[in-house]
Amino acid sequence: MTTDFGLRDPYVAEMKAVIYSIAPEAAVVDISHEIEKFNVRMGAYVLASAVPYFPKGTIHVAVIDPHVGTARQPIVMCTEVALLVGPDNGVLALAAKKLGGVNCAYRIADAALMRPRVSSTFHGRDIFAPAAAHLANKTPPAKLGSKIRSITMPKFSKVAKRKDMLVGEVLHVDSFGNIITNFVQNNLAMASAKTFVEIELHRVKRRLKLCRTYAEVEPQEPLAIIGSHDFLELSINQGNAAEAFGVKAGDQVILKLQKHA
Amino acid sequence: MTTDFGLRDPYVAEMKAVIYSIAPEAAVVDISHEIEKFNVRMGAYVLASAVPYFPKGTIHVAVIDPHVGTARQPIVMCTEVALLVGPDNGVLALAAKKLGGVNCAYRIADAALMRPRVSSTFHGRDIFAPAAAHLANKTPPAKLGSKIRSITMPKFSKVAKRKDMLVGEVLHVDSFGNIITNFVQNNLAMASAKTFVEIELHRVKRRLKLCRTYAEVEPQEPLAIIGSHDFLELSINQGNAAEAFGVKAGDQVILKLQKHA
Amino acid sequence: MTTDFGLRDPYVAEMKAVIYSIAPEAAVVDISHEIEKFNVRMGAYVLASAVPYFPKGTIHVAVIDPHVGTARQPIVMCTEVALLVGPDNGVLALAAKKLGGVNCAYRIADAALMRPRVSSTFHGRDIFAPAAAHLANKTPPAKLGSKIRSITMPKFSKVAKRKDMLVGEVLHVDSFGNIITNFVQNNLAMASAKTFVEIELHRVKRRLKLCRTYAEVEPQEPLAIIGSHDFLELSINQGNAAEAFGVKAGDQVILKLQKHA
Repeated sequence: MTTDFGLRDPYVAEMKAVIYSIAPEAAVVDISHEIEKFNVRMGAYVLASAVPYFPKGTIHVAVIDPHVGTARQPIVMCTEVALLVGPDNGVLALAAKKLGGVNCAYRIADAALMRPRVSSTFHGRDIFAPAAAHLANKTPPAKLGSKIRSITMPKFSKVAKRKDMLVGEVLHVDSFGNIITNFVQNNLAMASAKTFVEIELHRVKRRLKLCRTYAEVEPQEPLAIIGSHDFLELSINQGNAAEAFGVKAGDQVILKLQKHA
Repeated sequence: MTTDFGLRDPYVAEMKAVIYSIAPEAAVVDISHEIEKFNVRMGAYVLASAVPYFPKGTIHVAVIDPHVGTARQPIVMCTEVALLVGPDNGVLALAAKKLGGVNCAYRIADAALMRPRVSSTFHGRDIFAPAAAHLANKTPPAKLGSKIRSITMPKFSKVAKRKDMLVGEVLHVDSFGNIITNFVQNNLAMASAKTFVEIELHRVKRRLKLCRTYAEVEPQEPLAIIGSHDFLELSINQGNAAEAFGVKAGDQVILKLQKHA
Repeated sequence: MTTDFGLRDPYVAEMKAVIYSIAPEAAVVDISHEIEKFNVRMGAYVLASAVPYFPKGTIHVAVIDPHVGTARQPIVMCTEVALLVGPDNGVLALAAKKLGGVNCAYRIADAALMRPRVSSTFHGRDIFAPAAAHLANKTPPAKLGSKIRSITMPKFSKVAKRKDMLVGEVLHVDSFGNIITNFVQNNLAMASAKTFVEIELHRVKRRLKLCRTYAEVEPQEPLAIIGSHDFLELSINQGNAAEAFGVKAGDQVILKLQKHA
């Protein structure tokens, strides 16, 4: 389960209660309920990060749903290894891509597989949780509704080359303050970055040591590192880089290419 | 489980550890551990909201217990579909009402069904968790202690008619900033509220569009809506109404009746 | 599971996903993921508080790991009743002591029992979670790697006698603001503290009523109490003592001995 509901209110528990009522043997695991309110992009990133580690056959439910009750479709996406349930607003698509792409997708339309009374403000409980639970009970995805052909993609930009630099973005700032960019090892090879990385953030240039562990620099010193999800991360050893650098998700990051590689 | 313990300290885990030690097959589900410290009323609201969605036979444990260790009674309440375990301070009674009312209630008194050493400050771990676990193991509630006749009710006020208005209150402010009032659909009918609701909060009058979905108004615009728990909610589309209106749980809300319905 | 990862990011879920992939029948329980970032001492305290309540055979994984990827060893410690998995930086040792001491300890070294690709920044997912899952599947601890002889201890000081006082420290400040000291009942006997405790915090002397329940003083009044973990706690009835007294974990606490006992 991935939502922006938080853990203070009864909403997540109501979804779990609905799941257990339909599929008592289900093992429910929380990915995060602390997605920023209405932040579909953050939900997409967090979900996509976690899905590769789950067992084959896992059913993921993601509800970051600012347009609940409107024409946006409730859907299930089928990949080789997992099913993804949620609104068709981009929150699922990145995870599907990470799992090898979408084999097929269906609208969730059969009222018999929803709560008897569907509210217009809480589809997590009334549509998505029951759908996931029925899927856990081996209801085939095609039983939920008609096939759909196009899927909404979340808003992430790709790394672009511009003159002597690569332009990327901040995918996510984690609770440690690690700045996770969309640069990968290949981009570093292009930049001939072996021991240092030259980065520009909000027009400030920084030359950061490229490390394999945080402890290669002193506590409170900045560094660059290929993180555990294979992205270039900007960090401060035992400190908070995002706070120190004033950076948030979606910000532009520039990686300088070296002239004489 | 519903508590005000938070998730930072070991307390919730200690309760779960005690439950699993006695009833290894139990499936433990968190409703919320982020109830405001000592806020029995909020605990009662959150618990009562969630209980209708749980399977028959669920045992709920709620520990918001500012008078732990004093004369307030540890109890179990039996309803048609669930058992409710906690201190008799009002935290359980609203949930019991939601589940059709209390059939019987017992004091938790049998020391053999508690932890061997009962602390005077953590009955969640030493009395309530073991009681719930023994109930999960099919110990009949009557084995816990003697029957009790009267039960403490939480402090909620009812909607009252006063001249040309209905006086209600804010039941809860959720983490989205939705202001959940105690007005229901019937009260709107009394007010002849079909497309607009006239509300007074802290002496400020507001005329809010009565919507079926948040997206019927522009982002950051206020609205009124019958929410997923059948109460009238005051919201801001993709914004935080409670912050914008300066409202908190327990505040008075006035609903204006229309003169010429 | 005990970590400083928080619940916002995908990290805890990735560890759980790895555990369930290897040991699908495991019952995973969270102790806390809200340990302060890099605070090994707090992790050690919270883990040690909770472990006595878990069933025999529990496998604890604790990852507060500021030196991840460096020479600090990944280890498993065996006690009479539980196995403890994590970095050898002190986070496990206090819990082991609470469980009767370490019978044996092994380095986690066998790559076949790790994730196929081990990152240098997330051993929780790539080393500790798989190790714990294999242990849950009854892999003997000795299969993980070679025996190790000395174990890192966390930094806690012992109660010391100095002239007419006992010098202790604040072990933990919980989310209620309770100040949990390292004084125990025996120290109070030394101080002849029966109805009052004389305490010095940051050079401020306080005479606190020694209570058995919080409600023995008025709301917002301070008190001293032997808490549910058998330590002397300084509290405010329905208030926050740590905030009121300006105290944090690690601070010195002085208990005055009475001259004429």
